[in-house]
Amino acid sequence: MTVTQRRAGRPRDESVSEAISEAVLGLLAEVGIRGMSVDAVAARAGVSKASIYRRWSSKEDLVIDVIGGLVSRVEVSSTGEIRADLLLVLGRFGAFLSELKAGLIFPRLVGEVHCGSDLGRHYAESVILPRRALLAGLIADARERGELRRDLDVEIAVDMLTGPVILRNLMGAFRAADPAADEKLVDALLEGWRA
Amino acid sequence: MTVTQRRAGRPRDESVSEAISEAVLGLLAEVGIRGMSVDAVAARAGVSKASIYRRWSSKEDLVIDVIGGLVSRVEVSSTGEIRADLLLVLGRFGAFLSELKAGLIFPRLVGEVHCGSDLGRHYAESVILPRRALLAGLIADARERGELRRDLDVEIAVDMLTGPVILRNLMGAFRAADPAADEKLVDALLEGWRA
Repeated sequence: MTVTQRRAGRPRDESVSEAISEAVLGLLAEVGIRGMSVDAVAARAGVSKASIYRRWSSKEDLVIDVIGGLVSRVEVSSTGEIRADLLLVLGRFGAFLSELKAGLIFPRLVGEVHCGSDLGRHYAESVILPRRALLAGLIADARERGELRRDLDVEIAVDMLTGPVILRNLMGAFRAADPAADEKLVDALLEGWRA
Repeated sequence: MTVTQRRAGRPRDESVSEAISEAVLGLLAEVGIRGMSVDAVAARAGVSKASIYRRWSSKEDLVIDVIGGLVSRVEVSSTGEIRADLLLVLGRFGAFLSELKAGLIFPRLVGEVHCGSDLGRHYAESVILPRRALLAGLIADARERGELRRDLDVEIAVDMLTGPVILRNLMGAFRAADPAADEKLVDALLEGWRA
């Protein structure tokens, strides 16, 4: 469920949705999810509260939809070659995380998931779990094709791929940026995954 | 630097430190790092503010010392066999994370590290980085002994080991508990790491 899918057909709506989306991301970075109000979103986006509630039923819906719009760009597509597929996924995942990097959006979402709040549950169910399932499918397909070991545990494999990337991102300034990090990780993983 | 090392020799101090430590962990879980005051710690522990400032120079010092006391139990010791070593480390790391599980202590610490606050920097430098160095040493030793591939990248290996565990912990209720999770992870990793 992306922002795009929810937009009505009229061009005016496009820029309103864009303004709302930017206001949400800005406020999430500055004051966090709990500190953000629909009033503040409306004021910053220069729209009425009514035009927000016409599109979203609650603040939680709005936040999930905006983040979901970003995460939907983390496409999971298959080239038929697992190394290329994984590098593509990690590149897009990295871009998604860096869009959330300003302020504390990502750690705050992580906190909401961890404590099982409504927002956290909503985010886990509508964003994280479906993306994990796509990634698991990609790995399972490669196993099916004979590229990967038949006994590879797909769920563990998804953790091995995403855990280090999330860790690296959360460490922020305490990790030197390494442009080859994704490639090193994928090659290290495939060393153990290949048939 | 653990709470233990800072304790004075008198038995009375032991129970005071214990009470302060419990008060800190309770408050961290309930109101978070930023919401916690030294006044509140003193009130909950039933000690005077002076007796806290006698031991710690600031709230940040106190928090780091209490968390550092927990993390110091995540011993990194070598049995001479890497599989056993890694399982031991993960078991202790899991116990540490579950002590921080009540409330949002761990995600909050993660947030502080991510945004590079004084507390985050202090935590990264005095807790995370030294523990990572110990773990890296364990893996490097096993590589030296010929148990692991000579070309294994130790820093990536540390990420591959700790990233999935942190991810699993942060997912909270959205991950079914699997008592064999550590073993599955270590075996999957060793599949690619062994010489």
